[in-house]
Amino acid sequence: MSAPLVPTEPAAADAAPAATGDDDDVVDPFNVTSASSTGINYDRLIVKFGSTAITEDMVARLERVTNMRAHPWIRRGIFFSHRDLGSILDHVERGGRMYLYTGRGPSSEALHLGHLVPFMFTKYLQDAFKCPLVIQLTDDEKFLWKDHSLAETYRLGKENCKDIIACGFDISRTFIFSDYEYVGHMYPNIVRIQKTFTYSTIKAAFGFSDSDNVGKHAFPAVQAAPSFSSSFPHIFGADERVPCLIPCAIDQDPYFRLTRDAAPKLGFLKPALVHSKFFPSLHGFGTKMSASDESSAIYVTDTPKQIRDKIVKYAFSGGRDSVEEHRRLGANLAVDVPFAYLTFFLFDDERLERIRAEYSSGRMLTGEIKAELVGVLQPLVAAHQRARLAATDEAVRTFMSVRKLDV
Amino acid sequence: MSAPLVPTEPAAADAAPAATGDDDDVVDPFNVTSASSTGINYDRLIVKFGSTAITEDMVARLERVTNMRAHPWIRRGIFFSHRDLGSILDHVERGGRMYLYTGRGPSSEALHLGHLVPFMFTKYLQDAFKCPLVIQLTDDEKFLWKDHSLAETYRLGKENCKDIIACGFDISRTFIFSDYEYVGHMYPNIVRIQKTFTYSTIKAAFGFSDSDNVGKHAFPAVQAAPSFSSSFPHIFGADERVPCLIPCAIDQDPYFRLTRDAAPKLGFLKPALVHSKFFPSLHGFGTKMSASDESSAIYVTDTPKQIRDKIVKYAFSGGRDSVEEHRRLGANLAVDVPFAYLTFFLFDDERLERIRAEYSSGRMLTGEIKAELVGVLQPLVAAHQRARLAATDEAVRTFMSVRKLDV
Repeated sequence: MSAPLVPTEPAAADAAPAATGDDDDVVDPFNVTSASSTGINYDRLIVKFGSTAITEDMVARLERVTNMRAHPWIRRGIFFSHRDLGSILDHVERGGRMYLYTGRGPSSEALHLGHLVPFMFTKYLQDAFKCPLVIQLTDDEKFLWKDHSLAETYRLGKENCKDIIACGFDISRTFIFSDYEYVGHMYPNIVRIQKTFTYSTIKAAFGFSDSDNVGKHAFPAVQAAPSFSSSFPHIFGADERVPCLIPCAIDQDPYFRLTRDAAPKLGFLKPALVHSKFFPSLHGFGTKMSASDESSAIYVTDTPKQIRDKIVKYAFSGGRDSVEEHRRLGANLAVDVPFAYLTFFLFDDERLERIRAEYSSGRMLTGEIKAELVGVLQPLVAAHQRARLAATDEAVRTFMSVRKLDV
Repeated sequence: MSAPLVPTEPAAADAAPAATGDDDDVVDPFNVTSASSTGINYDRLIVKFGSTAITEDMVARLERVTNMRAHPWIRRGIFFSHRDLGSILDHVERGGRMYLYTGRGPSSEALHLGHLVPFMFTKYLQDAFKCPLVIQLTDDEKFLWKDHSLAETYRLGKENCKDIIACGFDISRTFIFSDYEYVGHMYPNIVRIQKTFTYSTIKAAFGFSDSDNVGKHAFPAVQAAPSFSSSFPHIFGADERVPCLIPCAIDQDPYFRLTRDAAPKLGFLKPALVHSKFFPSLHGFGTKMSASDESSAIYVTDTPKQIRDKIVKYAFSGGRDSVEEHRRLGANLAVDVPFAYLTFFLFDDERLERIRAEYSSGRMLTGEIKAELVGVLQPLVAAHQRARLAATDEAVRTFMSVRKLDV
């Protein structure tokens, strides 16, 4: 590919350099923790992972190439980092075809709002690029890592599939697959990739110990394989050089750093990536959404009343202790969860800016912000629930069938 | 299952105890070496591996249950060790069904005589038990371990399949599969097995290091999976409790010790095993047949002249240095390769016994034994070559198609 128009990382920069300084953040596929009340330091993470910040120039270029207003999440810095996005845009500008790949580990029945983020953004990318999309349900991963039966993770994958379909993907361009069902089709690529991964390498990337099961050693290649178009002959035929763009949360980057290292050894293209920040827990940036604590997240199955109650009772506020103090100092937006949620789900830029100004200056109070958020999320969740109901078993079968797609 | 009629190993004996004493033999799937000119000490190996010697009583019982004269190789102690063979005979005696599983790693085009041993014996077992048989071509294994391309190991598997078919298997009862093609069907069982294998366990069994590729860590579960009938729903339907008997060379035992450890954790039956000794190199028991030294083995592709020349020139003899000394002392059968080959391929018991007596007493000379062996192997190899020519691409497709079998 020719040189991208905006700076991207140097070719050899995929390997994450050792962290330096007082960095207490841990970000890998199995752990995301920050000691700070403002959460992960993403600027530092870009340096640590050797990825590239998404600049305003890159966003403008994305809009020109796709001839579409960019999604608020990339304009607002929620999708904040990338690898080789410029190369993908070069390729598309020259009339080349590409595809999207994202996934989900089906470990729970109900998705929370954070789970929707990669899918809603991927839906935008599919509309913008009008390209095929493959979505991997890593039921095998959840079986290998969690105390779930194989049948249960398979069932959860099928359930989650309905939530994914509800995000509005183009049925003529989208293939959703369970690893249990589809791995056989990718197996030659999986062993090719496994042959390039030494145990030293994956141990360093994922922190495995000798008492871990060996399925975990095998799995990174299973997540890597869909990055290569030859894993989908029913979509791409014999074309092994269709470039792939992967939208994902930044914690998945270690998988794809390894994938990108493997690609040239196999004669395949390195996948490009766009990374999102994490969607915060209701309890605050330094905490985790947890399936065992329902008050930590808003689920796509929540009723309007549950949504309102959770926001009013549990959403961590950056508002001040007294109205007087709040009027004087304004809210601390860096730790305010309701405002963070609005930056995700209030898509009206002007209204969001007005709220930012009013709240940070103390003219708006926490209760008003929370009411605003309730007014945004109740209809959003209700719309998701309607769309999910419309996702029939027949639709699941179609999305998950090995078939030709529009390319 | 009820208690077998003959002693088998205690339930917890699968784990190999640490070797004791002056044991220089190394036997695992990747290394078989002995410092002794008489080769591996198999009595010691039974103790080391915790398997059970096949007794005359067991052979007699096998004959009663199958209502067929036992194969010379089990009567002659070439298949010398087992795990739970008695339980299989109990089960068959009660009218239960069972199946056979064996395999081949396709790393070379032409098979040598040693490669035929498990298949010829399995052919006898299939005739005796009139049962389904699955044969795994571990093309993935050879790709992961050797400097072969994936396409090459796949091609070699297909080529080797013709040699396997030439051994005379019942097409209505035999399923031969390439891992590349069939792994997807077994993948749920493979991840179930992988979840029970810690890295510590497989490292101890196979001696992996951190610089080995992780495909090697994944593979033992791939070789284990065909031991369980649920890996073949097209043959056994929903019956997950059809017991499996695995004929194999003893070096494969570490795979199946692990498999037997995993079975009860998964609610599956432990596979039973019958183990063979190794077929010696033409150069002697302490040496190895090697693809890079054609004189070390007789190949199923060899011409009558090549067979005669190799035996005459290269077969290591236990005959004495001079005729006089030979007449006085007799041949040393413990190191004599032509006689060892006759114990494999001269199926006429009386004739073999006569040769043993004549040769060990010095009445027969090395040249006569070698001539006898030439007379046995030339027609055997020619018959194999004819049978292989008769194995069409169509036959390969049928044997390798996922289909119902007679059970």
